[in-house]
Amino acid sequence: MFFASDNTSGAPDQVMQALLRANDGFSLGYGADSLMDRVRGQIREVFEAPEAAVYLVATGTAANALAIASHVQPWHAIYCHRVAHIEEDECNAPEFYAGGAKLTLLDGADGIIDPHDLRMRLAGASNAVHHAQPGLLSLTNLTERGARYSVAQIAELAAIAKSHGLPVHLDGARFANAIVAEGCTPAEMTWRAGVDVVSFGGTKNGLLGVEAVVMFDPARAREFELRRKRGGHLVSKHRYLSAQMEAYLTDGLWLDLAARANASAARLEQGLIKAGASLIHPRGGNLLFAQLPRAAHRALRAAGAVYYDWPGDHADGPDDELLQARFVASWSTTEAHVDRFVTALAQAISG
Amino acid sequence: MFFASDNTSGAPDQVMQALLRANDGFSLGYGADSLMDRVRGQIREVFEAPEAAVYLVATGTAANALAIASHVQPWHAIYCHRVAHIEEDECNAPEFYAGGAKLTLLDGADGIIDPHDLRMRLAGASNAVHHAQPGLLSLTNLTERGARYSVAQIAELAAIAKSHGLPVHLDGARFANAIVAEGCTPAEMTWRAGVDVVSFGGTKNGLLGVEAVVMFDPARAREFELRRKRGGHLVSKHRYLSAQMEAYLTDGLWLDLAARANASAARLEQGLIKAGASLIHPRGGNLLFAQLPRAAHRALRAAGAVYYDWPGDHADGPDDELLQARFVASWSTTEAHVDRFVTALAQAISG
Amino acid sequence: MFFASDNTSGAPDQVMQALLRANDGFSLGYGADSLMDRVRGQIREVFEAPEAAVYLVATGTAANALAIASHVQPWHAIYCHRVAHIEEDECNAPEFYAGGAKLTLLDGADGIIDPHDLRMRLAGASNAVHHAQPGLLSLTNLTERGARYSVAQIAELAAIAKSHGLPVHLDGARFANAIVAEGCTPAEMTWRAGVDVVSFGGTKNGLLGVEAVVMFDPARAREFELRRKRGGHLVSKHRYLSAQMEAYLTDGLWLDLAARANASAARLEQGLIKAGASLIHPRGGNLLFAQLPRAAHRALRAAGAVYYDWPGDHADGPDDELLQARFVASWSTTEAHVDRFVTALAQAISG
Amino acid sequence: MFFASDNTSGAPDQVMQALLRANDGFSLGYGADSLMDRVRGQIREVFEAPEAAVYLVATGTAANALAIASHVQPWHAIYCHRVAHIEEDECNAPEFYAGGAKLTLLDGADGIIDPHDLRMRLAGASNAVHHAQPGLLSLTNLTERGARYSVAQIAELAAIAKSHGLPVHLDGARFANAIVAEGCTPAEMTWRAGVDVVSFGGTKNGLLGVEAVVMFDPARAREFELRRKRGGHLVSKHRYLSAQMEAYLTDGLWLDLAARANASAARLEQGLIKAGASLIHPRGGNLLFAQLPRAAHRALRAAGAVYYDWPGDHADGPDDELLQARFVASWSTTEAHVDRFVTALAQAISG
Repeated sequence: MFFASDNTSGAPDQVMQALLRANDGFSLGYGADSLMDRVRGQIREVFEAPEAAVYLVATGTAANALAIASHVQPWHAIYCHRVAHIEEDECNAPEFYAGGAKLTLLDGADGIIDPHDLRMRLAGASNAVHHAQPGLLSLTNLTERGARYSVAQIAELAAIAKSHGLPVHLDGARFANAIVAEGCTPAEMTWRAGVDVVSFGGTKNGLLGVEAVVMFDPARAREFELRRKRGGHLVSKHRYLSAQMEAYLTDGLWLDLAARANASAARLEQGLIKAGASLIHPRGGNLLFAQLPRAAHRALRAAGAVYYDWPGDHADGPDDELLQARFVASWSTTEAHVDRFVTALAQAISG
Repeated sequence: MFFASDNTSGAPDQVMQALLRANDGFSLGYGADSLMDRVRGQIREVFEAPEAAVYLVATGTAANALAIASHVQPWHAIYCHRVAHIEEDECNAPEFYAGGAKLTLLDGADGIIDPHDLRMRLAGASNAVHHAQPGLLSLTNLTERGARYSVAQIAELAAIAKSHGLPVHLDGARFANAIVAEGCTPAEMTWRAGVDVVSFGGTKNGLLGVEAVVMFDPARAREFELRRKRGGHLVSKHRYLSAQMEAYLTDGLWLDLAARANASAARLEQGLIKAGASLIHPRGGNLLFAQLPRAAHRALRAAGAVYYDWPGDHADGPDDELLQARFVASWSTTEAHVDRFVTALAQAISG
Repeated sequence: MFFASDNTSGAPDQVMQALLRANDGFSLGYGADSLMDRVRGQIREVFEAPEAAVYLVATGTAANALAIASHVQPWHAIYCHRVAHIEEDECNAPEFYAGGAKLTLLDGADGIIDPHDLRMRLAGASNAVHHAQPGLLSLTNLTERGARYSVAQIAELAAIAKSHGLPVHLDGARFANAIVAEGCTPAEMTWRAGVDVVSFGGTKNGLLGVEAVVMFDPARAREFELRRKRGGHLVSKHRYLSAQMEAYLTDGLWLDLAARANASAARLEQGLIKAGASLIHPRGGNLLFAQLPRAAHRALRAAGAVYYDWPGDHADGPDDELLQARFVASWSTTEAHVDRFVTALAQAISG
Repeated sequence: MFFASDNTSGAPDQVMQALLRANDGFSLGYGADSLMDRVRGQIREVFEAPEAAVYLVATGTAANALAIASHVQPWHAIYCHRVAHIEEDECNAPEFYAGGAKLTLLDGADGIIDPHDLRMRLAGASNAVHHAQPGLLSLTNLTERGARYSVAQIAELAAIAKSHGLPVHLDGARFANAIVAEGCTPAEMTWRAGVDVVSFGGTKNGLLGVEAVVMFDPARAREFELRRKRGGHLVSKHRYLSAQMEAYLTDGLWLDLAARANASAARLEQGLIKAGASLIHPRGGNLLFAQLPRAAHRALRAAGAVYYDWPGDHADGPDDELLQARFVASWSTTEAHVDRFVTALAQAISG
């Protein structure tokens, strides 16, 4: 009953086997391995973007910070949602990599940026040197509240950004979950909708630790390479990153894994609803936010369920106080895990 | 006949098996995995430093840059050898992480800092605000020229640094090779000699990609943790780093691997000498720099040998021009590899 | 009828004469001039802070950015009002100087931070490494909306900050105007209320370009000096800064100048009210924000009045649309200026 | 007998009068003053560069750091002489402004870069991402050792830089002294010789504190403006900078001042030679480095002479030990000052 985060799960067998295969013999480092050539081809094919620049790094924070920094200047404002991972969960990494650029926060329900808010901010921006200059729009799909931008929503926001000359970044730590749930192609969710650069996540969806940065306009590729090295994110034994990503993209494994996670989350959602829990945000993929009485939380924990109170820790208080929590399903969450949790939940509620 | 770099080799079976074992089930992320507790204990034991702060990152550049940045200020000068990895091979990562600090370069044969040079520089430093302020001494062992600091040499340099209040960093990307060759303990080469913080390398000695940062005074541990996260170097599925390091430190595997690499380099050295090649620097462990006629290089390459011209590429020129090259043996270099190379070399020279 | 900004005014005769006097002969540079000794003493006396560290710089942005950077780390959040000068008008200078720290924006009427908002933010802050760590509270008095924090309000906010271990910075670009209007001492508005470091403005109140940074705890003085030099803000012919500040502080000139500006603003306020304009924010000193019909703005401009539409430019539109504007009185604003404006306003309204 | 530095002198009457004139009335801030329009025109005329972008800042360190940062990236190497002001006397300001770029030091007698050294460094540079990438060449004229690059020397170095695609910066803190001594035009010493951007000094040559940055290709003008503001170097009451520079450039005042300083230095040089002192570097303008016995230094100081031991302080030692010192003449150094010093020197030597 482990629903703490999708990064608490392991890697599927195909990925581990790929690592073992990649371990054989000598291989040039720093991305000059032949596996990387194959990965580059795969990603270009997946995104229908034959010119895209493709790079691998080991963490999502690195992917986001490097992708963004390669598209802004230190005097820029980076527009993102108030609850974006780059704002809340990266300890100022975007500011660090972007030389002290500013994150300017936008509002909107469920972690989805309200186009009106973006439009107003950009309309109010001035090019006087006193002010941070508009620099980039960063979206997150799935959002940090588990909701999902539709392709149309991304396209609308990207169009606003582009009408002010801003490039668009997509934090796709849960890109696979979003794609599967939306039922669209990667191209539709990205460059066809106006996205310029994607953090294409692998870690939360079953890899040991690999994210790709995909830049549809390769003009900044060289800058990215230098920034990656300067950030200490160019891995010497790069074949181990390549191997993971290669397995991930072979035979649609990445989509299968995400489909499994989403299905588990859907099953969990049904269980929560049936038990009378209220859901806080619409489920866009494999994340759920639900509200339960403190007594139910306590009983679930006692039964072995693991998940995060959200936000913060729920200190002591009345048994019937409603408290929110986040539940994340991963590719390795099984029906049995979910059912065990749902049973425990039913007992917790009734008890 | 692959002598390009020790980071072109794979990982030994014990490490791959440890990865497979670690893959099982759910595990808390970001260093809260139980394997990390074990690794912390192992490293403290190996270094006889029960209070040391211990962190893992995935690249040597990250280890160095974070270790150094946690001990200096942006207005500091970081003293290092002219050919140090932090100066020549990290694309300004130390300057980036240290907020624009300056690397001040010292001289000395074979990549070993001349104590006289350090003494003169520090004697000439002024505390006037116009100048970069002395900040930290960084040593590299093995050096980038394959030589080795003795414990006494480290102690002498560290004593000079400390007499001016400077902390001492040791870039130990090839720490294991140095320890084995020097025949001393990790404590002797580090804190007992005055070193405050070590980049304890694993990648070049058989891991997929893990380096530990070991801080003997844990006072800056919290700062390190925040810098690591801000740099995008806190790995979410941390167990995969822990597992590698745990296997590395179990039953002295790390020392065995280094001993193998050093032995291969010694065998190669004999072959080179026998063939009449001149060695450029004294061999401290598993790196060799040798000089051969262009014709011999050409014949070796034709026979399938892989290694780096050093420095730069050797463009066309007369057959008998003497050109330098670097040869690196790794844990996976076999006697057969070496012997095949030596045979090819004999033919190249005689041919 | 020049109400654009208090930085559009010149300097009073006493300051210019001091400059001429200071110009005589040779003088050691970089703050080693004897005038600076006198200034240091004056400021310590004015603030009743005999241990305070005192430094001069030429711009308000430098004063703020250096003062703040000397008290935070790059992974920190700097709490300030949404309309603070450091957020809106310094082109990311605070982020630059603080190595990529984040400005976290608070709300509250009239540019005054709501203590409840601060309390909630700090209560919600976590010390997990994923998040920006609470770093510093920065207040602005007078606020950017012309309102004034009372001593009690400053003390309340500072107490909240300090209960979480945060230092407090006061952006006092219009400190003199606030002091005069509040009728308190500099000590009461600063260290006695819990402020640790002040940007003590001179430029907006009659100097050519000098701001003092006053640190009540001199522990970070050395760091400030190095940051100032590294920022290019250590002036070689420092005597010209010292001379201005010395004249400013002699015989209470600084208070007289501010009193004049405040009185002119009060007179202007009366005129505006009498003419039926609505005031947007309570007047705390020498700034006014008022609302007038577009037609009145147009007539005033035609009559030669200079002031800023606020916010942004007021494009064409209906004559009777109410539009906001900012009016700033300076030490050199005369009764005649104000009266001429008020007359023009009466005509504009009636016309 | 004040020969400590040219920044210890005051400003000539023309400059002070210009300040007084500029003080009258209201004036728009931040460079929008009408005086700045005039200054821009003057500088373009002086440099025969009608398209040049021209900006004023208050310190030489700001001018250098901003000028350089506007032409490099954080992963760049900035080539300069080992004793350049940007390396030795700006407390890492260039590194700070350039986001952590690296200063790579070149050798050459008298502070003049040896073209061979530059050529070898650039020939040895690699475009592999591991290394700092060649970014910019920065020259200093007069050099920090008082020597002077000829126009031909500048052109030779600039040509080498440009053959590798590098822009060229000229630190002209003593540009006027160099121009007057070289007997060439500003255009000849700068853009006609391949210089892209100049720090055109005023402070050391008689201003209170103003340096111009002149960019012959205005393509980076906008970036410079934003960097200047972000660095806190955009002065609000900008008219006071403009007024100084306007007076400086009117009727060739700047050249007259430099000619006076150079003449005083020449007179001093004669006196030193006559007294038997050895000169360390060829005199290029208004700086001298000479060697005298300790006893002579002591006697001169006792007689009231002020100048810097160079390098460092000369601690106690034998009377006849030869010690170096730096002597700087400024526009305000008079023949009487020099003669008084020469007399004292004769007595010191004979005594």
